[in-house]
Amino acid sequence: MLKTRFTEEFGIEHPIAQGGMQGVGLAELVAPVANAGALGFLTALTQPTPEDLAKEIERTRGMTDKPFGVNLTVLPTINPVPYDEYVDAIIAGGIKIVETAGRSPEPYMAKFKEYGVKVIHKCTSVRHALKAESVGVHGISIDGFECAGHPGEDDIPGLILIPAAANKLKIPMIASGGFGDGRGLAAALMLGADGINMGTRFLATREAPIHQNMKDQLVKSDERDTALIYRSMRNTARVFKNAIAQEVVELEKKGAEFKDIQHLVAGVRGRAAMKDGEVDGGIWTAGMITGLINDIPSVQELVERIVAEAEEIISAKQKLIA
Amino acid sequence: MLKTRFTEEFGIEHPIAQGGMQGVGLAELVAPVANAGALGFLTALTQPTPEDLAKEIERTRGMTDKPFGVNLTVLPTINPVPYDEYVDAIIAGGIKIVETAGRSPEPYMAKFKEYGVKVIHKCTSVRHALKAESVGVHGISIDGFECAGHPGEDDIPGLILIPAAANKLKIPMIASGGFGDGRGLAAALMLGADGINMGTRFLATREAPIHQNMKDQLVKSDERDTALIYRSMRNTARVFKNAIAQEVVELEKKGAEFKDIQHLVAGVRGRAAMKDGEVDGGIWTAGMITGLINDIPSVQELVERIVAEAEEIISAKQKLIA
Repeated sequence: MLKTRFTEEFGIEHPIAQGGMQGVGLAELVAPVANAGALGFLTALTQPTPEDLAKEIERTRGMTDKPFGVNLTVLPTINPVPYDEYVDAIIAGGIKIVETAGRSPEPYMAKFKEYGVKVIHKCTSVRHALKAESVGVHGISIDGFECAGHPGEDDIPGLILIPAAANKLKIPMIASGGFGDGRGLAAALMLGADGINMGTRFLATREAPIHQNMKDQLVKSDERDTALIYRSMRNTARVFKNAIAQEVVELEKKGAEFKDIQHLVAGVRGRAAMKDGEVDGGIWTAGMITGLINDIPSVQELVERIVAEAEEIISAKQKLIA
Repeated sequence: MLKTRFTEEFGIEHPIAQGGMQGVGLAELVAPVANAGALGFLTALTQPTPEDLAKEIERTRGMTDKPFGVNLTVLPTINPVPYDEYVDAIIAGGIKIVETAGRSPEPYMAKFKEYGVKVIHKCTSVRHALKAESVGVHGISIDGFECAGHPGEDDIPGLILIPAAANKLKIPMIASGGFGDGRGLAAALMLGADGINMGTRFLATREAPIHQNMKDQLVKSDERDTALIYRSMRNTARVFKNAIAQEVVELEKKGAEFKDIQHLVAGVRGRAAMKDGEVDGGIWTAGMITGLINDIPSVQELVERIVAEAEEIISAKQKLIA
């Protein structure tokens, strides 16, 4: 057992979170994460309506007695999203931990606090972390360049970003991006984090609700098998480096605008491809940790192994001190 | 005292190296590094001729009784470099540890081994590390995306690159790129390294033979103050993000070729600027660790502090295990 400020503040057994994973943060994954003693998050916007989110919270509660959270990612969208109603569904569902991302959680903090909901804000820079701390969040998930999805535009890896943030924050902080094993957890603690958040690593578990082909691909891939797309639009996303992703990168290099690549990257195509197991059929996110994924354990096996490995490594290095 | 495979294999007190730093790896820096119990390297090609390298080795020996090494970076150059004669100067000078970089050290391994010289090869990918191991080097310095100078084209940060390499290598390995404090040393050990290599952090020491203005700038800068240039030529270099570097980045984005930016980036201009303390006067290398540099200690203070901090952090995290 590793006890940190994160496990204490949020009442979780292990210092491991499974943060927002669009399309994947469903009861099938979140419940086993909770049962394993880690902190899983349903992804609010994976549910088409606030009512569906309420049902998904209930469905998850039917599968675990342990605490779990909901991720609320606020992004600019073409069609307006009823964020306030998602917030109401979270509160009505009795959720006590929310992961926010995308924009500052400031507009929702008063309501969350009123109902005793603790907020972990995920962000990719020290300045955004400090801003979130100043508006009263309870924890930070600091997300480095290695991560799947949106790493921001600063390109600061965890090795630098984690201590830079730890030096300035007072509240608990978990490290995100590039984590998936006991070495990483031990390193994150040394760098000043109180735990880790994992996304891609949880994709390669027996319970993750994605096609087996995607899981097998994560095992096969190495650390060079991700690509950054949308860089030219300052909306960078790290995705699995398949033929489509490489085509997008090349088109962007040649100055293509979003309208020129839209047919390649439409999110629905990626999600359909993931569902059908077509690893080359669309754009899907994967973080650099894919290079360190070598098996597809159960969530429980994964969480227990990571903690045990981290403990073993810390104890072994303690013995180097003469 | 932290004893690792690195300190044992190379007979060095602390698991810290000061690897090749073009223009800066002179006796003034290398001798205090050796005296502090870390492993300093003169930079062979900072000396205009092999005879000058022989003299610099002697000059360093006059300033320390402890072991130090020489860095030999093999790069494509316009004017041929007499590498064999530099190798002869290294051997004749009684040097027993060489850091190679740039190309595979294979052509020189037989001679180094004949004279009992141990080789640490610095490289930026797992495949190059394995190749170097296969030709008989004694250690690897694995250099991540965070580093000053040339990170390669894979963009893999230490958090991923270090364990990926550690999983496959049998020989000792130190971690390079993004290191400069006790947190980083402790994290590197957790990730599977046997020590760390630092460049930029050693620039901000009292003894480093650079202008005070550059040292002050490293203290002032944050983690976002580096830029990648020569990306479009697949010869990427991480440098301090001054106005010239930003101009180069912008020109490259617009498709400029080397001939179009040569007048901005000529190495001599950067070195002259460094000497004169003009932080905006030329291109000079700096790694992301600049974001975690807050003072200008002596080399001895720096090395002792890093080891003491790492020991303290490891021991503190050991206490989290319940």
